[in-house]
Amino acid sequence: MGVEIERKFRVRAGWRPDSAGEEIAQGYLSSVPERTVRVRLRGGRGYLTVKGKNGGADAARRAEFEYEIPAADARALLSLAEPGVIEKERCLVPVADGHTWEVDVFHGENEGLVVAEIELGAEDEPFARPDWLADEVTGDARYYNSSLARTPYRLWEER
Amino acid sequence: MGVEIERKFRVRAGWRPDSAGEEIAQGYLSSVPERTVRVRLRGGRGYLTVKGKNGGADAARRAEFEYEIPAADARALLSLAEPGVIEKERCLVPVADGHTWEVDVFHGENEGLVVAEIELGAEDEPFARPDWLADEVTGDARYYNSSLARTPYRLWEER
Repeated sequence: MGVEIERKFRVRAGWRPDSAGEEIAQGYLSSVPERTVRVRLRGGRGYLTVKGKNGGADAARRAEFEYEIPAADARALLSLAEPGVIEKERCLVPVADGHTWEVDVFHGENEGLVVAEIELGAEDEPFARPDWLADEVTGDARYYNSSLARTPYRLWEER
Repeated sequence: MGVEIERKFRVRAGWRPDSAGEEIAQGYLSSVPERTVRVRLRGGRGYLTVKGKNGGADAARRAEFEYEIPAADARALLSLAEPGVIEKERCLVPVADGHTWEVDVFHGENEGLVVAEIELGAEDEPFARPDWLADEVTGDARYYNSSLARTPYRLWEER
């Protein structure tokens, strides 16, 4: 078990990471806010991940349990998942202050959406904001991957 | 991944297995019929299990994916689970035809309920019915453990 401390941002319009990323396909066996159960295929490996309550005052902290599973199981579990599998490319973008941003370039139903996340060791850990960063969306439920599975970016009225 | 072929029965009133069983505590991260995600502590070991659609014409067959996880994770996940943790004792009862019945003696909110299950290699595999067996309840949704978590035996109007 771990606790995630993450901050999430949109990126400037038109900005994209320089290098290609790793293809990720993921779906949800449960997407209720109290407990999400995610199945993920990433670079040919499978993962099953349970996360505790999302959002609220403590939006940046969240219990997380992740287990590697056979890729063939992950593929079968994606077919059992709730409708709305997410496809994205994850790019790692190291910056000068020593942090590495995880930038998700979404495809499929979420084409056009690009989100950058930083994982912190403590909630008050300082970090530099690269000039390609736009608004912070930490805790904004529309950007949860579990929400993007149900209500993808292309259906948003306001982007 | 495997496919479960199971038949489930009540036992005769008052009958109990001779020997004590293994204590099981389990809860659900998802209990919708299309996909259940179960957390279980059994004899000090932890398990995370995903099962596909339950019930319907094909009630005896069901996709199942089980992963062992650290017992400490299972304990933490039980506290994240949906309300209604199931406590039961599982007794293995070998019978003369070579099969072994799994008999669940429920405790807590399901005290009084005893259910016997047999796992078969094929749906048409013959098996003897021990004289302590009562009605078959395969496919009866009230007896799903996911249902017993939400609507425990002590709340049933008709038993």
